[in-house]
Amino acid sequence: MRDDHLLTAKQLSREDVEEVLDRAAEFDADPSAFGDRHEDAILGLCFFEPSTRTKMSFETAIKRLGGDSVDMGTVESSSVKKGESLADTARVIAGYADALVLRHPSQGAAKMVGEFVDVPLLNAGDGAGHHPTQTLLDLYTIRENAGLDDITIGIMGDLKYGRTVHSLAHALTNFDADQHFISPESLKLPRSVRYDLHEEGANVREHTELDEILPALDVLYVTRIQRERFPDENEYQEIAGEYGIDLETLEPAKEDLTVMHPLPRVDEIAPEVDDTDYATYFEQAHNGVPVRMALLDQMLEADR
Amino acid sequence: MRDDHLLTAKQLSREDVEEVLDRAAEFDADPSAFGDRHEDAILGLCFFEPSTRTKMSFETAIKRLGGDSVDMGTVESSSVKKGESLADTARVIAGYADALVLRHPSQGAAKMVGEFVDVPLLNAGDGAGHHPTQTLLDLYTIRENAGLDDITIGIMGDLKYGRTVHSLAHALTNFDADQHFISPESLKLPRSVRYDLHEEGANVREHTELDEILPALDVLYVTRIQRERFPDENEYQEIAGEYGIDLETLEPAKEDLTVMHPLPRVDEIAPEVDDTDYATYFEQAHNGVPVRMALLDQMLEADR
Amino acid sequence: MRDDHLLTAKQLSREDVEEVLDRAAEFDADPSAFGDRHEDAILGLCFFEPSTRTKMSFETAIKRLGGDSVDMGTVESSSVKKGESLADTARVIAGYADALVLRHPSQGAAKMVGEFVDVPLLNAGDGAGHHPTQTLLDLYTIRENAGLDDITIGIMGDLKYGRTVHSLAHALTNFDADQHFISPESLKLPRSVRYDLHEEGANVREHTELDEILPALDVLYVTRIQRERFPDENEYQEIAGEYGIDLETLEPAKEDLTVMHPLPRVDEIAPEVDDTDYATYFEQAHNGVPVRMALLDQMLEADR
Repeated sequence: MRDDHLLTAKQLSREDVEEVLDRAAEFDADPSAFGDRHEDAILGLCFFEPSTRTKMSFETAIKRLGGDSVDMGTVESSSVKKGESLADTARVIAGYADALVLRHPSQGAAKMVGEFVDVPLLNAGDGAGHHPTQTLLDLYTIRENAGLDDITIGIMGDLKYGRTVHSLAHALTNFDADQHFISPESLKLPRSVRYDLHEEGANVREHTELDEILPALDVLYVTRIQRERFPDENEYQEIAGEYGIDLETLEPAKEDLTVMHPLPRVDEIAPEVDDTDYATYFEQAHNGVPVRMALLDQMLEADR
Repeated sequence: MRDDHLLTAKQLSREDVEEVLDRAAEFDADPSAFGDRHEDAILGLCFFEPSTRTKMSFETAIKRLGGDSVDMGTVESSSVKKGESLADTARVIAGYADALVLRHPSQGAAKMVGEFVDVPLLNAGDGAGHHPTQTLLDLYTIRENAGLDDITIGIMGDLKYGRTVHSLAHALTNFDADQHFISPESLKLPRSVRYDLHEEGANVREHTELDEILPALDVLYVTRIQRERFPDENEYQEIAGEYGIDLETLEPAKEDLTVMHPLPRVDEIAPEVDDTDYATYFEQAHNGVPVRMALLDQMLEADR
Repeated sequence: MRDDHLLTAKQLSREDVEEVLDRAAEFDADPSAFGDRHEDAILGLCFFEPSTRTKMSFETAIKRLGGDSVDMGTVESSSVKKGESLADTARVIAGYADALVLRHPSQGAAKMVGEFVDVPLLNAGDGAGHHPTQTLLDLYTIRENAGLDDITIGIMGDLKYGRTVHSLAHALTNFDADQHFISPESLKLPRSVRYDLHEEGANVREHTELDEILPALDVLYVTRIQRERFPDENEYQEIAGEYGIDLETLEPAKEDLTVMHPLPRVDEIAPEVDDTDYATYFEQAHNGVPVRMALLDQMLEADR
């Protein structure tokens, strides 16, 4: 397997991460200034499940670098319907493109595909597995707003099923960050994740109430609580209400608190928060572009 | 709200319209000659309902200007399905792109989105509301073929529900055009539209028969009569037959009559008309490109 | 009708084919080196049925030439749903683009559209009709691996319904190739195709067993046997097994046998064959790009 695939954030050392974020900052300073950097590059987009946001920001990233993308479209319209294997589909598209982005519902799909293709591969999420570019854009947003060392970060919401959260928590163990996890009992961090974080030396605390810890936070990362996890609609409503934030909730917060959310949000953050200086989630979504530009630039450079 | 959004044709003065049409004429003279004009521009396409023609001509326009587009895809595959609000979706895409195009089934959607996004927004149709780029390409086509002043124009077909028609009629009040509306009783102009046109000083006449007025027309704008408006199939067939045109119908017309149609047509214009000099509807469709190039160029220039 | 449409491989003489393949070889040598060749070209993609592979390789081809594409999307989302005729849809898109690619389920669709549009048209498959770009990429792959003269080629699988196979067989009659057809009785070449090949002077033999002829082959072209052709699942399984290949099947083959397949494959070629020097099907898929670059380049050059 090529060693320049990006399959998981875990493969990146602190130095690797910092290199990507530094490069992203250069692109972010003037995203329209790099249109002649990879004019001949074509990125193959293999999305086996829909993910508008991730796909659009990859497309924007390669186009801001002067390149272009080709998209296999939906699974329904593709050869997958005719019974083609994932390895075959990926190899055919790798024969067209200079790098591939893969999104797939099955954990481990990216690693498997990585064994077959002979162009660099970027994992854009494989089921309950990894989603390293999301982690990197989260880290970038934290660094730009609060720094990555000497910070206290709260991560709130669905900590049980949230891939984003597990990956971010692992990545933060490379930095000097105090991590606080806030959730209802039923959506706590899985034991295995908690164990791994301890093993990696993370400073981890768990809470069931946000107000226990809110005044100490530099960053509050809110995630979506999915309605479908709750058989009972009333129970969902109650929990969603308790782990959502609005202006009143945020009163005890530090003035320079950074509020993040991977989006889409439903009711977790009241729209009234959008106009405050806390709101960093649209900036966070935007950061997907410079961070993915940095990753693509690195891969395409190395592959020349 | 930014003042460079294009939400409705009504916001454009006669001078504004003429500036756009003049610029469109420059692009139309050699559409392939402007490929270095906006090389770093990315246009975000937010189509909340399908509209192949409008979307493709916007895509062609930005690409002919050297730029590129990113497309949120269908609503079914997007975050909208997860319950995301229109304002959130639009803000995320605005974080990727340099300008947005919005198509939405709800009247007023463009104005609402315009309040949230910080890049220029082009309304590409919001329900029964506005569709200013269609109006401008209609005006451009009329000007190129018959001029915009001292003309007699007939507008025929579904005048009750046709947004295109209402918007064009309003826009023509800026020019010295006699307007004749031809339709069955059941599909006449709504009273409110007629009232507004009178208020704006338009010279408006209504007819139920085309042959009453055809010989006087410089332009005949035919619109589609939608089958689904008629509970009774026979009634539909009869009316569609009466308000459709063919070579025989057109015999009393002026030699240089310009026949337009926003397309797609079904039975309103017989294919035998396509080969005559009357037929201007494919040219009209083509004109969507230079007119949208002109609008995008104006917005992207102003936003530099 | 314009004479620069590519509607069928039959319109190409041996010299025409060789010119395309020579040009393809130049592009293939360094596909990223031609990004300034057609920077202002826009290719219109009209796919009335899904065909990921063909569409993606056309998109890649025009982008490698520096141009771009606009895509009408799926039939479900297009004006076709509103009752628009194929001729109208094609004419509208021809008004945006510099050349068109058409894929349609109805035989003869490309020829019909060719009569209406005033930009060059490439037929990318019309029902049981023609698919000339597939034939050319097959010829290119054969030439690169075994040469096109003095070869013995075996074509195996579904020879009754396989458009790809009929078109390739016809094209090979321009060259000095011995053709062997291997299939179960129920999927033999149609009598009319066999007759035409004889008329064109082809040296054609038919077999029901691969091992009768395998040792003599320079090229083995395997095609998919479609499950839906067989009312009885057991019969399908038996035949699919008999006309599939694996390492054991290939033991009697020449060392430099070239194994091809138009893909997607299901069970016709065992994955263990992928790592051998026989396997040429992924290279064949890749060859769609340089061959389509060559065709587009020729058309766009001629149309300047």
